[in-house]
Amino acid sequence: MQALDIPRRSDVPQIAAGILVRLRAQTPRVHCITNTVAQNFTANALLAVGALPSMTTSLEEIGEFVAHTQALLVNLGTFDGERRKAVTIALDTAKKNKIPWVLDPVLIDRSPLRAIFAREMTVRGPQALRLNHVEFSTLSGTSPVPDALSLYAKDHKVVVGLSGASDFVTDGSRLATLANGHPWMAKVTGMGCVASALTAACLAVESDAWRATATALLLLGIAGEVAAVQTKGPGSFAAAIIDALANLDGATIIERARVT
Amino acid sequence: MQALDIPRRSDVPQIAAGILVRLRAQTPRVHCITNTVAQNFTANALLAVGALPSMTTSLEEIGEFVAHTQALLVNLGTFDGERRKAVTIALDTAKKNKIPWVLDPVLIDRSPLRAIFAREMTVRGPQALRLNHVEFSTLSGTSPVPDALSLYAKDHKVVVGLSGASDFVTDGSRLATLANGHPWMAKVTGMGCVASALTAACLAVESDAWRATATALLLLGIAGEVAAVQTKGPGSFAAAIIDALANLDGATIIERARVT
Amino acid sequence: MQALDIPRRSDVPQIAAGILVRLRAQTPRVHCITNTVAQNFTANALLAVGALPSMTTSLEEIGEFVAHTQALLVNLGTFDGERRKAVTIALDTAKKNKIPWVLDPVLIDRSPLRAIFAREMTVRGPQALRLNHVEFSTLSGTSPVPDALSLYAKDHKVVVGLSGASDFVTDGSRLATLANGHPWMAKVTGMGCVASALTAACLAVESDAWRATATALLLLGIAGEVAAVQTKGPGSFAAAIIDALANLDGATIIERARVT
Repeated sequence: MQALDIPRRSDVPQIAAGILVRLRAQTPRVHCITNTVAQNFTANALLAVGALPSMTTSLEEIGEFVAHTQALLVNLGTFDGERRKAVTIALDTAKKNKIPWVLDPVLIDRSPLRAIFAREMTVRGPQALRLNHVEFSTLSGTSPVPDALSLYAKDHKVVVGLSGASDFVTDGSRLATLANGHPWMAKVTGMGCVASALTAACLAVESDAWRATATALLLLGIAGEVAAVQTKGPGSFAAAIIDALANLDGATIIERARVT
Repeated sequence: MQALDIPRRSDVPQIAAGILVRLRAQTPRVHCITNTVAQNFTANALLAVGALPSMTTSLEEIGEFVAHTQALLVNLGTFDGERRKAVTIALDTAKKNKIPWVLDPVLIDRSPLRAIFAREMTVRGPQALRLNHVEFSTLSGTSPVPDALSLYAKDHKVVVGLSGASDFVTDGSRLATLANGHPWMAKVTGMGCVASALTAACLAVESDAWRATATALLLLGIAGEVAAVQTKGPGSFAAAIIDALANLDGATIIERARVT
Repeated sequence: MQALDIPRRSDVPQIAAGILVRLRAQTPRVHCITNTVAQNFTANALLAVGALPSMTTSLEEIGEFVAHTQALLVNLGTFDGERRKAVTIALDTAKKNKIPWVLDPVLIDRSPLRAIFAREMTVRGPQALRLNHVEFSTLSGTSPVPDALSLYAKDHKVVVGLSGASDFVTDGSRLATLANGHPWMAKVTGMGCVASALTAACLAVESDAWRATATALLLLGIAGEVAAVQTKGPGSFAAAIIDALANLDGATIIERARVT
């Protein structure tokens, strides 16, 4: 017999508060193959939550870096020849060392070749896929509605974290809808890249990829709201969101989270 | 009989106000081949005026990106082998698709080879050339006085946008002198690169390259003045100029413009 | 007979004040082979103290750039194939033109190959080596205690600038201990890279490498303290430390310096 349908608060905020504590205690290494536009902002966001970023794409070095990291980000922005080869080495190393990784298929709507490469990457088993509406449509051939996200997640055995006016996080059976955030987040270059990097950071301390992905998007959304009230445009906002991530605590998360 | 020489206000501020409205309404794509130092700042400046930046230099991808962009920037900073090849593909694609482009010959005074490459680029027909005094002298072999700029513009069928204490914009027949700006603009890395990227953005919505170039330099100069009064050094100024670009409106442009 | 052991203030603050005046008067060129993560922040820090940064790693161009620079930084972050080859050209040019250079062996603890390369670089005679505790341990095989630093400096004829809670600068005979700084400096990506770039800038105007290195670390430490009181997190702090470097003057240096 099924339980009564008593509405209850999502437990994602409590989960997120716990993961943030672990991030700061464990200071995990997160290696990022990411685009040159977003590298600096991404590294500062990772430092703000307690993680230790590294970003080399050198073919001689990346195997060593990935072997000793706790999570990996593969972001397809400014995807040059070296990055393409680096990804192969990085994923082989991650598989061998059981290191979780996140795929961010940046701008695949703009390049058919990049879209093909992204589809090949999904077969290699990322724990999470963090992307926006048009990127999901390009990747899956379907609209980014919750049912389609859920189906995709189930079929591909991956957690989908979709960023937008509301964020959706699903593993095919669980769905979190996150209403935090601020419009200026879409006016700062690399904000999606940061969301993916934070997802990797959370995966470094939380083996449930759905919990990790929902936490990353929640932390960033709340930080965006906090930052927006203190600033007057997207330039100062970009600095303030790093401040907000660094100052975020469990009480603020519980108080501000709008998760269903 | 010639008209009486009644002094009249330049119509550049009104033109700029109109172009800014179109930028925000049309949100054009602007592809930037630009240096790794300035990429983040440039992308945020483009987003602040309403444009959508992309920055890949991957040889496999750049043709697709440029084919579907509304304007192109070719900036010669940190000009590595991949960028050199990427430029050729990008310009062939731009020509085929009639996409306007801007040349920014960064630091050609420091590298004879880069200066030669820049001269080859000018033959390929950029709509606008955005540069500083020493770069113009290196490129043209003449001093950057208005008459020399005008002659160069006429000979090369290009709009010259010269940044300095005052900016000059000429197509050989029209000359705008822009007195807006702030000394801190010379203390922020990539400010010239941003001026060139904004020129590309304006070209995406305005086919008269003189109007587009004058608008870009005016918007940035006014944003610099607004930002300077709110900050106390070049670091916070760099964030504030993005805020100012994002908050800029027609009334502020008309009120603050110092154009002759 | 030995002089009485009268305690006296270090003369490093006065030296630093003088070097800062010369930096602003001479505006030396500083070429940086540095990682893509830190390029923008590094360039703005150099501009803030009066230096003129350039950052190309193009093999065709770097010889020309280095030949006409006043100091060189070799930072091993995001060390790709092009950077590896660029370093060789740059160091050959620096040797021929007697241009001082700084080695920053970023993250050599993470990559055995990078550590080997760094050791090869030390043989090529940098004037200064700027690094953190774990990097020194990896490079030297010894703990980063003052005696070990001093021995290393003497053996390798190099000034060692060690960043940490306190900074140590030694050439084997002189030792400065610098207690300025702020914990947020460890939360901003590229802060160590900036310390190394400022060391190069100081070497451009001061031939005594111990004085140059101590000055760079002191200027940055004091700027960090000034910036911290004005900001509430590492994001706004990163902008404020550029402001503080730009506004730094001799009186503030003398007043705030904690050097023994």
